[in-house]
Amino acid sequence: MDTPRFLKAIRREPVDTTPVWFMRQAGRYMAEYRALRQRYSLLEICRQPDLATEVTLQPVRRIDVDAAILFSDLLVPLEPMGLPFDFIKGEGPQLEHPVQSAADVDALVRFEPRDALAHVLTAIRQIKGELGALPLIGFAGAPFTLASYAIEGGHSNNFARTKSLMYGDPAAWHRLCALLADVVSDYLLAQIEAGVDVVQVFDSWVGALNASDYREFALPHTQRIFEAVRGRAPSIHFGTGTGSILEELRDAGGDVVGVDWRIPIDVAWTRIGFDRGVQGNLDPTLLLGPVERMLQQVDDVLDRVDGRPGHIFNLGHGILPSTPVEHVQMLAQYVHSTGARGQ
Amino acid sequence: MDTPRFLKAIRREPVDTTPVWFMRQAGRYMAEYRALRQRYSLLEICRQPDLATEVTLQPVRRIDVDAAILFSDLLVPLEPMGLPFDFIKGEGPQLEHPVQSAADVDALVRFEPRDALAHVLTAIRQIKGELGALPLIGFAGAPFTLASYAIEGGHSNNFARTKSLMYGDPAAWHRLCALLADVVSDYLLAQIEAGVDVVQVFDSWVGALNASDYREFALPHTQRIFEAVRGRAPSIHFGTGTGSILEELRDAGGDVVGVDWRIPIDVAWTRIGFDRGVQGNLDPTLLLGPVERMLQQVDDVLDRVDGRPGHIFNLGHGILPSTPVEHVQMLAQYVHSTGARGQ
Repeated sequence: MDTPRFLKAIRREPVDTTPVWFMRQAGRYMAEYRALRQRYSLLEICRQPDLATEVTLQPVRRIDVDAAILFSDLLVPLEPMGLPFDFIKGEGPQLEHPVQSAADVDALVRFEPRDALAHVLTAIRQIKGELGALPLIGFAGAPFTLASYAIEGGHSNNFARTKSLMYGDPAAWHRLCALLADVVSDYLLAQIEAGVDVVQVFDSWVGALNASDYREFALPHTQRIFEAVRGRAPSIHFGTGTGSILEELRDAGGDVVGVDWRIPIDVAWTRIGFDRGVQGNLDPTLLLGPVERMLQQVDDVLDRVDGRPGHIFNLGHGILPSTPVEHVQMLAQYVHSTGARGQ
Repeated sequence: MDTPRFLKAIRREPVDTTPVWFMRQAGRYMAEYRALRQRYSLLEICRQPDLATEVTLQPVRRIDVDAAILFSDLLVPLEPMGLPFDFIKGEGPQLEHPVQSAADVDALVRFEPRDALAHVLTAIRQIKGELGALPLIGFAGAPFTLASYAIEGGHSNNFARTKSLMYGDPAAWHRLCALLADVVSDYLLAQIEAGVDVVQVFDSWVGALNASDYREFALPHTQRIFEAVRGRAPSIHFGTGTGSILEELRDAGGDVVGVDWRIPIDVAWTRIGFDRGVQGNLDPTLLLGPVERMLQQVDDVLDRVDGRPGHIFNLGHGILPSTPVEHVQMLAQYVHSTGARGQ
């Protein structure tokens, strides 16, 4: 059986056409997901393997993607560490007791994901049974982004509490991030053992740091995660707003580095280096329409990549809830019909 | 009388030491401001010249800054255009009827700021009477940032509605931004006529755009504002998250270009060009403490600037409400004691 083009692209091997998948390809923009959410909360879907399996497969049935991604949430490992949370309608995640001090950090625990998150691993095995040859992506958050949720208690605009702990008690910060690196490494290795083909590390909010702070406070911890999974599964390193720290993200690790829409993909790839793959970088807002502009920008991305092996087409961030599913379908087909033109 | 060092720095003339002021130097981190806010709403302070004067002067009395900045809000010109709003506790600004269509755009009006915003101009004249030689900064929002508030109805994390109008109905977008450029130009010229010495244009959220979109959707409108004020008052062009569009911001205009903390100030200045000044770029979170790290980072900024004329010390964004006022005082003194070491 041929190696799927998604896995070939991660290895920077030539492909018949550009592989494509979408962050949040399972989610609120799909009617079948919204129907399920009428009956189940987000956490219920994350916790019940049959529901997580169903939601993971929904986009695979409708959209010509080259990979599935496990349906789950970045915050899932926080609860067994000692940080329970819930999702508040219209406000996103909310932790019951955010980390406020060194003592709070030291109360957190490393846990066995094969026990505490067995439901996720069951979902992975079920999904793999349904997917056939289509690769499955597992994922987890990077220490900076997970620490920001742990400390802020939810989304933040300025990461004031996060940076306040980081600058104010660097020892506690490093203990927290070292623990998160352990937890995420354990979790990703368990996901790989359960069957995921590739892992993506989401450092969604790390663009709030400059290069100097990234090297001091984030890089060593993220690097340990990529070292832990090296040789076990290929890896993708994702962030947004990272135009000033692309070299630092690359140095932290990842066979493929994600790039958002703020920087042209060829400029980003040159800075990252051609010994890595790149993933991205369409602005998710373009999928709201009009279709002509969306496809023009796809052409621009593919022109800039110019057939160089190692590009995975994706958005710069997740699909927006108001996106018409037809646009996503059209986009995947268009990438396949015109991608890897240099081959 | 000597020209104040703040004005000298804008002209890239040698100064005795580095001038410093702070975005949101008047505001919630000051006890005297919070005391006033017990009795008056934010909009009442903006609308009553005596209150706006008092709040503008509060930091000048306590902190060794080289300029005052008019206390007001970016959204103030929206109401006389036809977009009333209020500030909702804990949620920020909220427009009553956000712009949703081309028809909504065409219902907006250009207005005479000497009538509709006479209270702001009265405040400026009063403040100037109190300030003596200390320069006063006037300000307004740039079209992209103001359009984002007009369309989203408040703060946004992804600017989905804003970009949806921008991509989906470019003609309506350009009409909206052309009107905003007229409104802001009128307003800044009226502020200059009333006595402000310098104007700052805030494009706070423009870092959501890439260079290509900035050139198409934002630059022409922002440029018209800087052309309108040219020769009337020196200008500062501010944005955050602009590491991928610094050259574009420069091309849009401004005697001085603001730089946030995500990019080293010497790297940014080289890209902007030494025929412009720069303002920034300390991370506001550093002011939460510890003081040693804050001052180390001040040293880093000043080392990178290396005494080149044309640097105004500031933060990368506004002072955070939880900032101890003593840290702000210490920071201003420290900049003055060690700044412009190359002179």
